[in-house]
Amino acid sequence: MNKKLVLSGFGNVGREFVKLIYEKKEDIEKEYGINLILCGVIGREGCIFEDKGLDLSLLLKCDKGSKGILQYGKINNDSFYDYPVFEGDILIECSNSDIYNGGAALNYIFNFIKRGIDVVAVSKGALVTNFTNIVQLAKENNVRLKYSGATAAALPTIDIGYYSLAGAKIKSIIGILNGTTNYILTKMEKENVSIDEALEEAIKKGITERENSMDIDGIDSACKLLLLANSFMKIEYKLDQISIEGIRNIGIGDINKAKGENKVIKLLSKAYFNDNEVVLKVLPEAVDRDHPMASIKGTNKGVIFNTDTMGEICVFGGESNPRGAAAAAIKDVINICRE
Amino acid sequence: MNKKLVLSGFGNVGREFVKLIYEKKEDIEKEYGINLILCGVIGREGCIFEDKGLDLSLLLKCDKGSKGILQYGKINNDSFYDYPVFEGDILIECSNSDIYNGGAALNYIFNFIKRGIDVVAVSKGALVTNFTNIVQLAKENNVRLKYSGATAAALPTIDIGYYSLAGAKIKSIIGILNGTTNYILTKMEKENVSIDEALEEAIKKGITERENSMDIDGIDSACKLLLLANSFMKIEYKLDQISIEGIRNIGIGDINKAKGENKVIKLLSKAYFNDNEVVLKVLPEAVDRDHPMASIKGTNKGVIFNTDTMGEICVFGGESNPRGAAAAAIKDVINICRE
Repeated sequence: MNKKLVLSGFGNVGREFVKLIYEKKEDIEKEYGINLILCGVIGREGCIFEDKGLDLSLLLKCDKGSKGILQYGKINNDSFYDYPVFEGDILIECSNSDIYNGGAALNYIFNFIKRGIDVVAVSKGALVTNFTNIVQLAKENNVRLKYSGATAAALPTIDIGYYSLAGAKIKSIIGILNGTTNYILTKMEKENVSIDEALEEAIKKGITERENSMDIDGIDSACKLLLLANSFMKIEYKLDQISIEGIRNIGIGDINKAKGENKVIKLLSKAYFNDNEVVLKVLPEAVDRDHPMASIKGTNKGVIFNTDTMGEICVFGGESNPRGAAAAAIKDVINICRE
Repeated sequence: MNKKLVLSGFGNVGREFVKLIYEKKEDIEKEYGINLILCGVIGREGCIFEDKGLDLSLLLKCDKGSKGILQYGKINNDSFYDYPVFEGDILIECSNSDIYNGGAALNYIFNFIKRGIDVVAVSKGALVTNFTNIVQLAKENNVRLKYSGATAAALPTIDIGYYSLAGAKIKSIIGILNGTTNYILTKMEKENVSIDEALEEAIKKGITERENSMDIDGIDSACKLLLLANSFMKIEYKLDQISIEGIRNIGIGDINKAKGENKVIKLLSKAYFNDNEVVLKVLPEAVDRDHPMASIKGTNKGVIFNTDTMGEICVFGGESNPRGAAAAAIKDVINICRE
C-alpha cells in the first residue's frame, strides 16, 4: 500500500526522519507492505511538494531548516506550494515546539486533521496547549493521531499505555521524563561537581533544549507528564495545573546527603490519585538506591505505570536524540497503517 | 461492537480471565466500545456454549477445570456441545501447555484458525512446537493471532517488539523470562540459603511450574525466548536449537563469588547475531551490579531489546500470576478488536 507523507519542520528531527525513510524504505516495504512516499515538506519560509515523491537523496544534500527547503525548491523550481493544498495520508509534525501558544504546529495539525489526514506529532507544543481540542477534532474527523515522539521519543510510553495496558486501570505514572536533567544529576553524583559545571557539560554535548530552563526547571518533564496523564488517566489538565519544581536549587550538598542515606536524587514526574482527584507533580526527590528509578542513569529516561491488574510495569532506555525521535515517528506511521 | 469469545481451558488462568471479564465488562464497553460476550468454554471432558453469552456469575461459582465446566453444564443441561461447532470471534487459548507435542491447544488453535476465528494464545505449548505452522495458517486464513500471555504474561514483550519497535531492527534480546528462578536466585543471594531451600520456598508460594524442572532447568525461559526470537528476528527455530543451561548447579559458593566481584547471578535468555546467524541461549551469568538486569529482583521478569535506531529499551515488572496472564489476554483481545 502506498502512503503519502507530508513533513512539517525540517530541523534536526525532521531531517533525521527523511534520512530514516531514505535508509529504510525498502525494508519497510518488504516487512510491512507499506510504501512510504514523502511528498511534501512544510517550512516557515516555503514548502516543497511533488505528488510522485520528493527526491530524498537531493533533499538530504540540502541544509536543514527552511534554508534547505528553499535550496531544494530552487533546484526543482516548480515545487513551491502553499501547504493547505497538500494532499497526503499522514502528516508528520516536527516543527519547533511552542509550549505556550502551540505555534505553527497547531495550524498544521488542525488544518490536516480537518482534511481527514492522519497525524503523527513529534513536537510537543500543539498537544501541550490544545490536547483536548486536538483529540476531539481527530475523533470528529475520524483521523488517527499518534504522538510517541512528543512523549519521550524512542522510549515507549504512549504505546505501553495504549497497547500493553489496554483494559487495565492506570493508577499512577512515575517517570524520569527528561534525559538532560538526569544526565546532570548523574554527573553531579558520580563526579561530585556543581550543577553549573554539569549543566555546562550538558550544553557542550548539545543535549539541552534551546532554552535550558525547559530542562532545568522541569518544564519539559511537565509537558510530557501532561500528555501521558491526559492520555491515560481520563483528565483534561493544562500545564498550569501541574506543580513544577526543577533541579535549579539542587546543590552538591543535597546530592551527598542523599548518598549518605543510600539514596539518589532524581527529577521525578508523578501522576497519581489523591482521593478521586488526579495530582500531577514534577519535583526532585531522593529515592532509595534499589528503587527502579535509581537505576536509570545518564541521559536515559524511564517510566513506571502502576496498574490494577498487571502490577507495575517499568520501561526505560531509548535513544534520546533526533534519530530516536525520528524512529519513534516511523513507528507511529507503521502502527497507523496497520490499524 | 459485540465480540463473542470462546475460552479453551478453565484452569487458574482461564478462570481468572472469566473473572476479569465479569469485573470489567462495563468499563471495557464504555472505554473501548467493545461488548465482550463469553459464549463458550472448552474443557477436556466437555464444553458449554450459549450464543447469548454464558452466565458468568454462575460459572464463577463452579469449580475450576473440567469439573467446573461439567457443573455448569448440569445446571443448564442443554449446553453441551462438541467444540468444533462453536461460533465466535476470538478464541482465548488457556489450556495446559504441552511444550513437547502441543497438546489439545494445538487442535483448538488449528481448528479455530481454519474457521476464520482470531486467536489469543495464553498457553505456550502449541506455539513452541508449531510456531511457523500456526503463523502461516493464520496468515492464509486472514486471522489475527496474539500471544502476550505466552511470553511473560503481564510484562509487555511481544507488544514492545510489534508496536513500539516497529520499523527498527532488533539486534539482540536479553531477558530474565522466568520469575521463579529469579525469585530463587534473589533469595539465595539475599538470605544466603541453598538452592534447595529457596526452591522449597518457591514451591510453598505456589509459583513453580507443575514440573519444576521447567523452571530450574531453564526450559520455560527457553520457550519464551523462542517465541520472542521467532517473532522478531526473522528465524524459524525449534526448541532443540537453543542451548539451555538452568540454575540447578548454582551453589551458594557461586552466588558469593559473584557478590565478591560486585556482580549478581541471573538466569539470562539471550538471542543475538553471531555473524549472520542468530544464536539462542539460556544460561546463568554473573552480571555487573549496575547492569539493568541486576535490578530485576524477586519474581519480576524483564527484557532488553537492542535496536538499530532506538537504542536499548528495557522493560520489567508485570504481575507473574494468573491474574496478570488473564489481563494480558484481555489486552490482546482489545488490540485485536481495534485493528
